Amino acid sequence: MLTKTQAAEKLLQLDDLLILCHRNPDGDTLGSGFALCRALLNIGKRARVFCQDKIPDKFRYMVPEMPEFEPKHLISVDVADFALFGDKTEEQIALYGPVELAIDHHPSHRPFAQELYLEGNSASCCEIIWELLNEKKDCWKLDRTIADCLYTGVATDTGCFKFSNTSPRTHRIAAELIEMGADYVTINKVMFDTKTFEELKLERLALDRLWMSEDGKIAVMTITKELMEEAEVDETGLDAITSLPRKIEGVEVGITLKQRGETEFKVSVRTGETTSASDICAHFGGGGHARAAGCQFEGLSTGEIQKKMVEAAYQEMGRG
Amino acid sequence: MLTKTQAAEKLLQLDDLLILCHRNPDGDTLGSGFALCRALLNIGKRARVFCQDKIPDKFRYMVPEMPEFEPKHLISVDVADFALFGDKTEEQIALYGPVELAIDHHPSHRPFAQELYLEGNSASCCEIIWELLNEKKDCWKLDRTIADCLYTGVATDTGCFKFSNTSPRTHRIAAELIEMGADYVTINKVMFDTKTFEELKLERLALDRLWMSEDGKIAVMTITKELMEEAEVDETGLDAITSLPRKIEGVEVGITLKQRGETEFKVSVRTGETTSASDICAHFGGGGHARAAGCQFEGLSTGEIQKKMVEAAYQEMGRG
Repeated sequence: MLTKTQAAEKLLQLDDLLILCHRNPDGDTLGSGFALCRALLNIGKRARVFCQDKIPDKFRYMVPEMPEFEPKHLISVDVADFALFGDKTEEQIALYGPVELAIDHHPSHRPFAQELYLEGNSASCCEIIWELLNEKKDCWKLDRTIADCLYTGVATDTGCFKFSNTSPRTHRIAAELIEMGADYVTINKVMFDTKTFEELKLERLALDRLWMSEDGKIAVMTITKELMEEAEVDETGLDAITSLPRKIEGVEVGITLKQRGETEFKVSVRTGETTSASDICAHFGGGGHARAAGCQFEGLSTGEIQKKMVEAAYQEMGRG
Repeated sequence: MLTKTQAAEKLLQLDDLLILCHRNPDGDTLGSGFALCRALLNIGKRARVFCQDKIPDKFRYMVPEMPEFEPKHLISVDVADFALFGDKTEEQIALYGPVELAIDHHPSHRPFAQELYLEGNSASCCEIIWELLNEKKDCWKLDRTIADCLYTGVATDTGCFKFSNTSPRTHRIAAELIEMGADYVTINKVMFDTKTFEELKLERLALDRLWMSEDGKIAVMTITKELMEEAEVDETGLDAITSLPRKIEGVEVGITLKQRGETEFKVSVRTGETTSASDICAHFGGGGHARAAGCQFEGLSTGEIQKKMVEAAYQEMGRG
C-alpha cells in the first residue's frame, strides 16, 4: 500500500491516463474520476474517464471535453472489487491494463490493482482525491469545476452530511471546496431536493398500500410489478422509496417488498438503533449491515412474505 | 453595537439570567438559548430559557434541569424584532426587563435591546453563540450536550448545509461540534428524515390532486380543509408540504393553495433560479423573497385562484 505522499506524487506523474469508475456510477466514483481527469487536463496531460454504464443526466455538469488517445496508464477510483467494473471496463483493462493504482475508501476493498491507496475511514473517495491533490497543491491548477466534482461525491456519499460516516474532516473539506467556488446550492438541489414525477407517482401509489403494525413499530410497503408499471418506473427508480417506511415517526423496522419476477420478491429492511436489520434477514438466508439489509423469497404470496418478515422483525426487535 | 470580544465578555459576566427565544420556536432559537443556558449552568451561574410556546417534543433533548430564581438580566437569542416575542414573553420583559443584549443573525433585525450583537451574514444564531463561547473557550466548560444544541441550530437553519446561507465557517463549526461529541446522526435523523404518519397521509392525498401544466414547468397543489381533516393535520403540519411541488424535476414554479376559511385561501409560491416568486405574488398584493413568497385570496374558487396564479407565473417566468 502506498503512503499518502507516494500516491499524491504518482498522480502528478500520470499521462495518457484512463480513469476507471465502477458500474452503476454514483456521485462519488464520477466526482473522483472527473475531478482527477480535469486536474490532469488543466496541466496539459491527456486523461479520460471510462464508465461502462450511462452517466445519469444529473451528473453531466462534471464531464469535460476529453481527448482521444491510446491509454498508457490505468487507475481506478471508488472501486472496491474487480467484479464491480463490469464487462466493458474489463475489456478496456484487457486492452490497456493492468490497473496500476486503485484509490478507494471501502474498508471491504479486495485488492486487484498493482498498487493501492486506501483510506477505509474516509466517507467518500472524493475526500481522498481532495487530500491527494491538496498534498501537492502548488503543482495543480484546481478550479471551481473540480470543486463541483469533489463536492458532489463528498455530499452524496454522506447523504448531505447526515450519515455516520461524516467526519470533522468531511466538513473541513466541504468548507474548502465552497471557498474554491463549488456551486453547492445547485448541486444539493439536484441531488437531494429533486424528484421525478414518476418517483412521486410511485410514492403516492406505494403509500396507498402501506401497512403499519398496531403498535406503529413496523411499516411494510409492497411494490408490485403492476404498481411499477402504473408509475412508469423501473428497478432503478426504487432506491429512494426503500428508505421511506423507516422514516415514519416511531417506526423501528421499515420493510419494502419489491417484486422481481412472477413469484420472486426482493425484501429490503431498514432499522433503527436497537434492531439489527441483518439479523432479521438472516432468518431467510439474507444479510447485509446492521441498519440496512435484504433477503429474497420465491413462490410465496405478498401476504405470506409480510407475515414472515413481521414475525422475524418482532423476534429481533430491541436486540441491537 | 458591541464588538465580538465585548459580546463574548458580557456573556461571561451574566448571572441570574433569563434567555428569551422567539415564539413558534425552531431549532436555532432553542439551540442558541439552551447552549448558552447550559454553558452558564456548567460554571455555577443561574440561568433559564423562556419561550412562551410549547417546545416541540423533538427538541426536548436540549432542555436541562433549570433552577427557579428571580431574573436579574435578560438577553434574547435569534429574535429579529420585538413583535416576535409574543405576549407572554413581553410580560416577562415588563416584569424583569429591559432586554440588555440581543444576539441575532437576521439582516432585517430591528433593534429593541439596550445592546446588540448582530452578524447578518451568519447562517444561524447558533453559529454566533459558538463563536462567542469559543472566543473565551478557557473560561467555559463546554460539553457534548452544548455541542448537540449548537449543532441543531447550525443544521436546521441551513437545511442540513444545503441552503445558500451555508458558508465555509458553517462547515468548520460543524466539524468542531462533531469533535466535541455532537450526536449529529440522531439529530439529523430526527430533524430531516422523520415524517409523521399524518404528514405522509397528507402528502399522499395532496399528490392525488396535483396539477401540472402541460410543459411541466408549473405544479399546483391544493390543500382544502376537507383534505386536512382527512389527513388529521392542522396548519402547523403544512410547512414541509409547501416545498413539494417545486421539488418535481423540471418544475420552475411550485404553487400551493391552502384553505384558511370557507372562501379564504393562502397561496405559497416557490421558484427556481430564473423566476421571481415575489413578483408573481405582487400581482395579487402579496410579496416575500425571490425564491419563496405568498399572497391571499378571498371569495374565489380554487379553480379561479389556480387560473390567476398560473397566468401570473407564465408572465413572470424567466424574468429572474
